Amino acid sequence: MPVGTQATVKAMAPWELEEIGYQIILGNTYHLSVRPGMEVIRKFGGLHRFESWNRAILTDSGGYQVFSLAKLRKMSSEGVWFQSHVDGTKMFMGPKESMAIQRELGSDIAMAFDECPPCPCTEAYEAAAVGRTLAWAKVCTGEPRAPGQLRFGIVQGGTFSAQREKCAKGLLAMNGAWDGYAIGGVSVGEPDELILPGVELSVKWLPREKPRYLMGVGQWWQMCEAVARGVDMFDCVMPTRLARHGMVFTKAGRFNARAAARRMDEGPLEEGCQCPACRRFSRGYVRHLLSVGEILGARLTATHNLWAYRDFTERMKASIREGRFAEFRRETAKVYGPEAGRPMNGGYGA
Amino acid sequence: MPVGTQATVKAMAPWELEEIGYQIILGNTYHLSVRPGMEVIRKFGGLHRFESWNRAILTDSGGYQVFSLAKLRKMSSEGVWFQSHVDGTKMFMGPKESMAIQRELGSDIAMAFDECPPCPCTEAYEAAAVGRTLAWAKVCTGEPRAPGQLRFGIVQGGTFSAQREKCAKGLLAMNGAWDGYAIGGVSVGEPDELILPGVELSVKWLPREKPRYLMGVGQWWQMCEAVARGVDMFDCVMPTRLARHGMVFTKAGRFNARAAARRMDEGPLEEGCQCPACRRFSRGYVRHLLSVGEILGARLTATHNLWAYRDFTERMKASIREGRFAEFRRETAKVYGPEAGRPMNGGYGA
Repeated sequence: MPVGTQATVKAMAPWELEEIGYQIILGNTYHLSVRPGMEVIRKFGGLHRFESWNRAILTDSGGYQVFSLAKLRKMSSEGVWFQSHVDGTKMFMGPKESMAIQRELGSDIAMAFDECPPCPCTEAYEAAAVGRTLAWAKVCTGEPRAPGQLRFGIVQGGTFSAQREKCAKGLLAMNGAWDGYAIGGVSVGEPDELILPGVELSVKWLPREKPRYLMGVGQWWQMCEAVARGVDMFDCVMPTRLARHGMVFTKAGRFNARAAARRMDEGPLEEGCQCPACRRFSRGYVRHLLSVGEILGARLTATHNLWAYRDFTERMKASIREGRFAEFRRETAKVYGPEAGRPMNGGYGA
Repeated sequence: MPVGTQATVKAMAPWELEEIGYQIILGNTYHLSVRPGMEVIRKFGGLHRFESWNRAILTDSGGYQVFSLAKLRKMSSEGVWFQSHVDGTKMFMGPKESMAIQRELGSDIAMAFDECPPCPCTEAYEAAAVGRTLAWAKVCTGEPRAPGQLRFGIVQGGTFSAQREKCAKGLLAMNGAWDGYAIGGVSVGEPDELILPGVELSVKWLPREKPRYLMGVGQWWQMCEAVARGVDMFDCVMPTRLARHGMVFTKAGRFNARAAARRMDEGPLEEGCQCPACRRFSRGYVRHLLSVGEILGARLTATHNLWAYRDFTERMKASIREGRFAEFRRETAKVYGPEAGRPMNGGYGA
C-alpha cells in the first residue's frame, strides 16, 4: 500500500496510481483529523470522495502518530490528551475517538487504536503498553463501523516473546472480532537482527485464514523475509519519500538519481521498465530536474518507484504461484539484503 | 506560450501540456546554459529530446536574465561578462554566444540577443541600450542557425517614442533577416499607464505579415489590449507561478484557492471547466492540498490555469474570426481589467 498521509500519495495524482495498478492506499487518521479536520471530511462524505479515490483505503488508528509526533499531555485508560504538531491545539484520542474518525473517513479497513512504544523499551513498559493496547482493542470491537468496513487488530509487544504472545492471544480471545491482524512495533528503532524475530514472535499466533499486515516495513528483502514467515500486506513511505531524495529502485538495486555520474546518462531510470517515467525520460534529465529542485523530478522518481514496488510484489506473487519463491527470495536478498551492503532501515545508501 | 525555464514547465509533465493542446513552449537560454549546461544539452542532441517535448520551442536570448539575475562584471561591444546566479561561475554572453547556445538547444524560434533596461531609465541610457541591441542584432543575423530555426528581432526603447522607432527601423533595415518581431522592455517596472503605449510605439513600425510577439505579458486584459493593437504571441509565467501561490483563473475572475472560505467548497475550481483538475477534484480538496504544501496542489492549480489560458486564447481567436472581438475585449476588461480593480502587473489580488 502506498501511503497517502494527508489525503494524497505525495507527488502523485490518483489516476497515476490507478494506471500503475494499486488497489488500496493508506490514509493517516491522526494527520487527517488535524488537517483538513473531520468537519471537512464529513461535509465531503468521507475520504474516498474527498481525495477522489474510488478503490480501497486502509486507515491507521492514529495511535502511532499521537505517540510519536504530538506533544503528549496526559494518558488515561480512555486514551490520550495531546497537542497537535501543527498548531498546538489540544485534542483527545482513544479507541472510541479513533474508531469514530475512521468511521467518518469511511475507510475500507480500520485499525484498532494501539500504543506502539519505540525501542529501546523495558519489558515492564512494553507489558503496560500491551495491556493498554488490549483494553483499547476491546473497546474498538464495541464501536460501530462504516458500512462494509473491516477491522484489524494490532499485535504489539516489541522484542519480547511473552508480550507478543500475550497481545496476540488477547486479540484472538475477542471472539472473531477481527477481519485481519497487523504486526506493529517492528522497525521502531530495534537493532537490525531483532526485526524479523519480532515478526516471527507475532505471526506464529495468528490464524492463516486471515490477512496478516506488517505495518511500516517496505525494504524489498524484508518484505520477502516477512512473506516467507506468513505476512500478506505491507505499507511503507519508502517508494515516495526516498523518491523525493532521488533514490530509485530497480531490479538490479537502487541508486541515487541525483548523482553527478547520471548527468550525461541517456538511458531510462531502469532498462526495460514500462513505467510512464522510463517510457519517456532519461536519467540525465531526471538528474537535472532533481538537482534544480523541479517538481517533475519528484513526480518521475515517485512514479517509477511505485511502479517498481508494484512490479516487485506482482513478481513475488507469481513466484509463489509458480513454486519459485525460494529462488526469488534468494535473488532479492542478493541484490537488496544486508549481504549486499544495504542498510536495513531505509538509509540513503548509494 | 507556457514558460519552461529549466527544461520543464513547472509542476507539469509534457503529456499534460499536450493534452491541454499547447503547440509551443518557451525555454530560457541563460538558465539552461547554467544548468544543466550545454555539455549535457549537446550530449542529448538538443532541448526537445532532453525534455521530451516534440512540439515547438521558442528560446529567449538570455539577455534579460544576464542583465536582471546575474552579477554583471563587464560589458563590451561583444557582450557581457557576468557571474552565474547559481554558483558565481564567470561566464560571457554576447550575440554570437547566444545564437550558438540557441542553435545547440535546437529551438524552433531563436531570439536576438538584446539589452532590456529596467524602468525607470533615462532616455540617454535607453538610447545606448538600443544602440547595443541593434549592433548585437546585426551580429545575430550573421550567425548560423539550427536546421529550420526561425529568428526574431526584439524592439527595445522603453517608454521613449524615438527610441522605439529607432530600434524598430534599425531591425527592419536588416533586409528581411527576421522571421518575426518581439516587443521587449514592456512591463519592466514602468507605471501602468505606460505599458500599452510601449506596445503601440513598437507595433506601428512592424510589418503586419510577420508575427509580433509581446514578451512576458500575460494578464488577460493586457493580452486583449495588445491583440487589439496587433500583437500575435505571448509568453508568461503567471499561470504556473501564481498557481503555486493558489491563484486560480476563471472566466468570472481569479480567486485564491488557499482561502479559508474554500474549505468546505464541493464545487470544482471552475464550474463547467473540463480540465483534468476540475473533472475530478473540488475546491475544498485543492485548498487542503495547498494549505498543507502537497505537490498535487500545485499540479492541479497549474493544470487548471494552463487549461484556462489556452481556453482564453482559443476563445479570443474565435471572437476575432466571428467578428465579436470588440465584445470579447469589453467583457475581458470588465472581469480582469483595471476597472475591475485588478492589478496590472501580476499582483496577487484575491
